Amino acid sequence: MALIFATSNRHKFEEAKAIAAEHGVKIEMRDVLCDEIQADDLEDIAGFSAKEACRILGKPCFVEDAGLFVRALRGFPGPYSNYVFRTIGNEGLLKLMAGIKDRDAEFRSAVSYCEPKSKPIVFSGRSSGIITTEARGHHGFGFDPVFVSKRGDGRTFAEMLTAEKSKYSHRAMAIRKFLKWYVQRKTV
Amino acid sequence: MALIFATSNRHKFEEAKAIAAEHGVKIEMRDVLCDEIQADDLEDIAGFSAKEACRILGKPCFVEDAGLFVRALRGFPGPYSNYVFRTIGNEGLLKLMAGIKDRDAEFRSAVSYCEPKSKPIVFSGRSSGIITTEARGHHGFGFDPVFVSKRGDGRTFAEMLTAEKSKYSHRAMAIRKFLKWYVQRKTV
Repeated sequence: MALIFATSNRHKFEEAKAIAAEHGVKIEMRDVLCDEIQADDLEDIAGFSAKEACRILGKPCFVEDAGLFVRALRGFPGPYSNYVFRTIGNEGLLKLMAGIKDRDAEFRSAVSYCEPKSKPIVFSGRSSGIITTEARGHHGFGFDPVFVSKRGDGRTFAEMLTAEKSKYSHRAMAIRKFLKWYVQRKTV
Repeated sequence: MALIFATSNRHKFEEAKAIAAEHGVKIEMRDVLCDEIQADDLEDIAGFSAKEACRILGKPCFVEDAGLFVRALRGFPGPYSNYVFRTIGNEGLLKLMAGIKDRDAEFRSAVSYCEPKSKPIVFSGRSSGIITTEARGHHGFGFDPVFVSKRGDGRTFAEMLTAEKSKYSHRAMAIRKFLKWYVQRKTV
């Protein structure tokens, strides 16, 4: 039986699917309309959503929540990266960063898994990098075109194909931590 | 018995208290730690919070949620005005608006009241205005220093004392609608 990834984001699903395959896990996408809370920590948001999605589906499932935290902007756009991207976009973020020397930023991801009648468990991933001065690339989604990982070769996340981005990304890190735990647990 | 306003914001409470007094209603501030959902509509957020706060308190109460929606920024910072203010502040908003001619913005407020075992009821208020080119004034809170109501005299909300701001504000409008309903209902 496939493991359910409760998400409405096709890009996230494709990233997760490739990583799950590496772990011999088959995942299935389900767009569950559930409440998401406001919180400064992604872990709290993901935990709440996993519990909600599991309650609605009546089955084990996992969710993922991510955000871009820019140091010079005190963590903006953070947990609200989705709304900020939909409104001011990469253009707005670059405008805010104009003239700012400290370009440090971190992409964070929280994956949460929940089973019926259980508490959600959360796995985190982080990717350190910098905000570019112009948007580059067309792969991925969201703020990928303005983020360069410190562990990469200078290209933005949007200039990498999924498999390559998954070597460095916050989401891949959190999903790998979760799947490692999930697979070991299932084989005990 | 005083009516409970579930909020952690002293400024909001003081604004509401003065308006409640006009309606012969005594209100009490209670900082209830409850979940707040993410949604594009303030009405949905307020309704959820009122239900949560009422469930936790076991008593009737109301909550208020507000946001600044800037037209040229497609509704940014909207429902996440609090986090955006805490991170990039007025300075960040003005930077985003630099060079933009369309300064139209709207402050929106949603007040929601809930009683145990009932559905929350929501009242909305709006205040049309423009975003200034510099922050002015020290009263109020949040984005008040960069917002000028179209119905006022050119001063920002932060250049007005509470009583004056309440003639034009989104929050005062929503709270008045609610209290008018609340008082009539109580005397039936």
